[in-house]
Amino acid sequence: MCKACDYTIHGAQHHFGWDNSIAPVETVAPGSTILFHCKDSSAGQLGPASTAGDVKTLDFGKINPVSGPIYVDGAEPGDVLKITLDSFAPRTEGGKGWGWTANIPGFGLLADQFTEAALNIWTYDADSLEPALWGSTGKVALKPFAGTVGVAPAEPGPHSIVPPRRVGGNLDIRDLAAGAELYLPVEVAGALFSVGDTHAAQGDGEVCGTAIESPMDVVLTLDLVKGEPLKMPRFTTPGPVTRHLDARGYEVTTGVGPDLMTGARDAVAGMIDLLTARHGMTPVEAYMLVSTCGDLRISEIVDAPNWVVSFYFPRSVFE
Amino acid sequence: MCKACDYTIHGAQHHFGWDNSIAPVETVAPGSTILFHCKDSSAGQLGPASTAGDVKTLDFGKINPVSGPIYVDGAEPGDVLKITLDSFAPRTEGGKGWGWTANIPGFGLLADQFTEAALNIWTYDADSLEPALWGSTGKVALKPFAGTVGVAPAEPGPHSIVPPRRVGGNLDIRDLAAGAELYLPVEVAGALFSVGDTHAAQGDGEVCGTAIESPMDVVLTLDLVKGEPLKMPRFTTPGPVTRHLDARGYEVTTGVGPDLMTGARDAVAGMIDLLTARHGMTPVEAYMLVSTCGDLRISEIVDAPNWVVSFYFPRSVFE
Repeated sequence: MCKACDYTIHGAQHHFGWDNSIAPVETVAPGSTILFHCKDSSAGQLGPASTAGDVKTLDFGKINPVSGPIYVDGAEPGDVLKITLDSFAPRTEGGKGWGWTANIPGFGLLADQFTEAALNIWTYDADSLEPALWGSTGKVALKPFAGTVGVAPAEPGPHSIVPPRRVGGNLDIRDLAAGAELYLPVEVAGALFSVGDTHAAQGDGEVCGTAIESPMDVVLTLDLVKGEPLKMPRFTTPGPVTRHLDARGYEVTTGVGPDLMTGARDAVAGMIDLLTARHGMTPVEAYMLVSTCGDLRISEIVDAPNWVVSFYFPRSVFE
Repeated sequence: MCKACDYTIHGAQHHFGWDNSIAPVETVAPGSTILFHCKDSSAGQLGPASTAGDVKTLDFGKINPVSGPIYVDGAEPGDVLKITLDSFAPRTEGGKGWGWTANIPGFGLLADQFTEAALNIWTYDADSLEPALWGSTGKVALKPFAGTVGVAPAEPGPHSIVPPRRVGGNLDIRDLAAGAELYLPVEVAGALFSVGDTHAAQGDGEVCGTAIESPMDVVLTLDLVKGEPLKMPRFTTPGPVTRHLDARGYEVTTGVGPDLMTGARDAVAGMIDLLTARHGMTPVEAYMLVSTCGDLRISEIVDAPNWVVSFYFPRSVFE
C-alpha cells in the first residue's frame, strides 16, 4: 500500500526479456509515482525452503522477470527518462524478509572454478534492515535496490534480460537504492519502462552472479527530460554509498596486470583464499558471501601496461 | 623530524626504475620505523611556479624517483614484507603545501583525446589538510598516500618504474594512506624496499595519469611475515576510505559493454561531458580534476556479455 502512488503494478504484470512489441501494462503521465510488486529474480522458483538441488533445475526461461512495461506519455526517442527511486520494501515470508544467493553453474566471474550449484538462504528483519546473518559468525549490511531498471531498446524483437545496455536493464548497480535518481536514454515512444531483480545487498561487481535476491515492493517516480540527449545511463546518489558497511575498513586483495578482467578475477580469487583460510568456510561459500558485500574497484588504469583491480571486503562482516 | 624513527632516508637517496642490483641505502632489522623524504614524481622538475610549457620538456628519465632501496635483514624470496604506513606530511613551499596535476601527452586513460600538455598547480594547508581549491568554485578533499610502494623484482636488470607488478611498485592505490597495512611478496634477499610518488589526493583509476603530485615526508614500519606466501599485493585499511569526500553523494556516469577498458573510457568521457556542460571548465580541466577525486568502480562483471563500469564523482567538490 502506497498512499502517494498513482498506480500499482502487480506481481503478475511482468515480462521476461526486452521487446518493444510487448504491450504496456499501464500508461502514465510524466511525474507519476508507481508502486511495483517485484518478484525475486527466480520468479518464485526459489523460496525460503529451497536447496542447492533446486538451483540445478531452474528454468532459465523464467529468470529475472521485470514488472512493466510502463508507457510514459510523451516520451520520444532522444528523450531521457528520469527515474527517482523512492523506496524499497522487502516482502516477507512468515514475518521475515528473506533472500537467496546462488552459485549457478556456468554463470559468474569465476564460473570455470565453481562448477557446482550452491545456495545460501538469508533471513533478515525487513523493517529494521539490520545486517543479515551469515552462518554463525558473519553479518552482511543491507541496502535494498533494484538490479534491473530499464527501458525498451529500439531494435525490434526479443532481447535477453541478462546483459544491460545503453538503455539500462540489468545494470546491477548497487547504489541504485532509495533516493537515487537514474537517467536513461529513451529509444522508443513511451519509453516502455520496467523494473525488477530486487536485491537486499550486493557488492560492486556481483561477482558470483547473484546478490541477496529478494522480492520487494518498489516505489519510484518517472519523469521526462527533453533536449538533453544521453549516451549511457547516469545517476545521482543523495548521499554516501558505503557507510552502511565501511565503519571498520576493508581487507583488500588485488590483481595486477595488463587485462582488467584477469585482474578482477585474480583479486576475487585472492579474497576467496584469504576468507577460506581465516574463517573456516568453503571456497564456494566465500565466493557467494563476497558477491553480496565485496566491491571491485579499479585502483589505477594508466600505468601501462599493468592495471590494478582491487577487491574490497568490508571488515564489518566478521569484526 | 620523527622521534620514533630508527632511520631517515634523505631526498637524495633515491633511484629511478627497479633493479635488484641497486645497492641498498640502508640495512634495517624487521620492525624498524623509517622516515623517507620523498620527492614529487617529477623529481623536482616541476614546482609551484611551473606552467604547461614545463610539462612538455619533462625529462622522462627522471620521472617517479623512489626513495631507497632498504635491505631488510632476514628477508628471503617467498617471504612477505608487511609495510605499515604510519604518516604522510606534505612538504611546504613558502609555508603552503603544494602539488601539481598534469595532462602529459601520450599518458593517461584518454591520451588519444587529450594530446596537449596541461598543468594545474594546487596549494593547500599542509597541516589542516582542508580541501584544496579548484579554481574559484571547487574544492577537492585531501588524503595523502604513496603511489609507489614496492620491492625489487627477482628478474635481473632494470625495469621501468611505470607499471606496478606483483611485487608492488607504482600501484597508485588511493587507500594506501595513513594506517593502512600493505603486504608484498618478496622476490630477492633483503626485499629491497622503496617508496615514492606521494599524492595529496587521487581518485580510483588516476584517470588522467597524474594525481595531486606533492613531495612528502613518509613514515612507515617494515616487518617480515614468514610462511604465508602471497601471490599479489594485499592490504588492510584501518577504517572507511571515502568519508573524506562522500558526504554529499556522487554524480555517476557509466560505460556499458563487453570490454572493461572501453567501459571505463566511456564512463570517464561521460563525466567530462557532464562537468564541462555544468561548470564552465574546459574538457582537459575536467579530465585533470576528476583524476584527483573521481572513482572507477566495476558495478557488475557477470551479466554477459556486457559489464558496467561506473565513474563516481563526489558532489562535495561543487556543493
